[in-house]
Amino acid sequence: MKTFFSEDHRKHFPQAELSGGQFVTPFERPSRVEYVLAELKARGMGDIVAPGAADMAPIEAICDAGYLAFLQSAFAEWKADGNAGELIAGCITPRGMRTDRIPTNIDGKAGYYCHAAETAITAGTWEAALSSAASAQAAQAEVTAGARAAFALCRPPGHHATADQYGGYCFINNAAMAAQMFAAAGQRTTVLDIDFHHGNGTQNIFYDREDVLFASLHGDPADAYPYFLGHADERGTGAGEGANANYPMKSGTAWDEWGAALDDAIGKIRAHGTEALVVSLGVDAYKDDPISFFRLVSDDFTRAGEKIAALGLPTLFVMEGGYAIEAVGINTVNVLAGFEGA
Amino acid sequence: MKTFFSEDHRKHFPQAELSGGQFVTPFERPSRVEYVLAELKARGMGDIVAPGAADMAPIEAICDAGYLAFLQSAFAEWKADGNAGELIAGCITPRGMRTDRIPTNIDGKAGYYCHAAETAITAGTWEAALSSAASAQAAQAEVTAGARAAFALCRPPGHHATADQYGGYCFINNAAMAAQMFAAAGQRTTVLDIDFHHGNGTQNIFYDREDVLFASLHGDPADAYPYFLGHADERGTGAGEGANANYPMKSGTAWDEWGAALDDAIGKIRAHGTEALVVSLGVDAYKDDPISFFRLVSDDFTRAGEKIAALGLPTLFVMEGGYAIEAVGINTVNVLAGFEGA
Ligand SMILES: [Zn+2]
Ligand SMILES: [Zn+2]
Repeated sequence: MKTFFSEDHRKHFPQAELSGGQFVTPFERPSRVEYVLAELKARGMGDIVAPGAADMAPIEAICDAGYLAFLQSAFAEWKADGNAGELIAGCITPRGMRTDRIPTNIDGKAGYYCHAAETAITAGTWEAALSSAASAQAAQAEVTAGARAAFALCRPPGHHATADQYGGYCFINNAAMAAQMFAAAGQRTTVLDIDFHHGNGTQNIFYDREDVLFASLHGDPADAYPYFLGHADERGTGAGEGANANYPMKSGTAWDEWGAALDDAIGKIRAHGTEALVVSLGVDAYKDDPISFFRLVSDDFTRAGEKIAALGLPTLFVMEGGYAIEAVGINTVNVLAGFEGA
Repeated sequence: MKTFFSEDHRKHFPQAELSGGQFVTPFERPSRVEYVLAELKARGMGDIVAPGAADMAPIEAICDAGYLAFLQSAFAEWKADGNAGELIAGCITPRGMRTDRIPTNIDGKAGYYCHAAETAITAGTWEAALSSAASAQAAQAEVTAGARAAFALCRPPGHHATADQYGGYCFINNAAMAAQMFAAAGQRTTVLDIDFHHGNGTQNIFYDREDVLFASLHGDPADAYPYFLGHADERGTGAGEGANANYPMKSGTAWDEWGAALDDAIGKIRAHGTEALVVSLGVDAYKDDPISFFRLVSDDFTRAGEKIAALGLPTLFVMEGGYAIEAVGINTVNVLAGFEGA
């Protein structure tokens, strides 16, 4: 399958991530995709294509207009306000306070539009996020044009971004955008999220929708980021009741339980009458991932790809997380190769 | 009047405050109170008395039990979980996510119990917070015993702490605790908050209460921390409707407008039938405060003390913020001296 990828991802590389009470070099760093690219090439996985400029319409279809305006100007506003560092939101709209007024001051405004403080905004974040969305758009178009599958090697990732909040290294929800593109074309759509972390943004965007199923395998939010969403009892609301399926799992979860959850999710994808599948492809369920606690081995990712392929659906893979730098390439391509070889 | 003060405040001195995308030496630092102590002594303001150990009952009367348990064990849990730095909550329960489940993991749990990431928890934070509450308790007892006024030189401050959230340098809401002690004794009580920042914690604790009036003069939350509370239309709820009065003011506000707001608040304090007055005494409305934007000069603090004295009420002053280090002593004692001289 073809891979869609933009070098503009490099424009987003914060100096610091708040982690463990310190600043560390971000786990979500440019070198992650180098390992994926190298592995794609080494294994002859197909052409690697640069997307054109992002089309704003599909982004606007899933994002709040005020949020997009904020993302574009946030870093400049932050600097104009005299802040020395990159933009890190310290005052995130907390429980018990008001959410009906957006602060004017950039520090407060960033808190309104952010849901986790580890994620910095830099001078190039907006352009990088747009280029990431552009890759997802191009890959979606490839599938719409008849390809069995395509891979959007997106960076920064997207599944934690809601319609109006960034965080968890995510700014624009590439997978949700692509799913909405399929849904807008009348196709019953599923986003299957196999990243270690719950795809809170994607869930949030489609929570009241019947036409887009969201299914996520992830670390139990009692123990894992994003902490405040991703429980099993979140099943959708209104017309979307039943079209949301979470599989939170405990520390140490390995293939037996994870693969069984994937099988269950696949059953729901079939029952949904899915016509187009978007896979939020994170590989941080890997045993050596530095910020996760599952125990998948590299071969398990191949098996996951095989199971997904058995659905027989047009499938768009969208890159999400994965931070065991050396292994992220192998594990990502194992999913794709497992899919193609099945 | 007597001052109540504990040296144990020194046990809370984080290495870092998240500010402007960087770590800086906390604005809320031990030396703040040294300037107040020196000024109290230089001007012969009265005895400075160390409180006994904190009584837990008045603290438990305003705080959630789970929150207090968290504060006690948080730093140890954080270290046991392998975190290198002091405890800084990066994942604060954000809008749109769930608030009905408290994470097990200390990083998530801290986010649940925190409302702003600038405030670190250290090994000595709990003991310091208790000692700060002890000073407020002792000063409250002094007023209850018949003193016209007393001063609790509290550090860390308290007015941003809710029943179950720390932040804004605050852990236990000393002023709210003292107000509840007066109210529990059957006295109609007011907390007058003249700190530059909105006393969101105090408002939150008494928002549905008719017997405790909360009145706050502060920087407009559109432009100033805590950003998400403190608007003029917050007037209380249920039985507390009308017993909450906010005076948000814009950048550059000086005595003319600030003093007029104080006059209006004093009218409400009279109308409330106040029998006991607690003053959240922050002096960051000062023109040179590094994190605020009002323009009060030192003499204005004397005038504020005079106006408060004119109420003729038993009055407990509780130290809150003020970060123009050298001036914090002069301005704080000016309020007290203005009160005594009136
Ligand atoms: Zn992840
Ligand atoms: Zn203040």
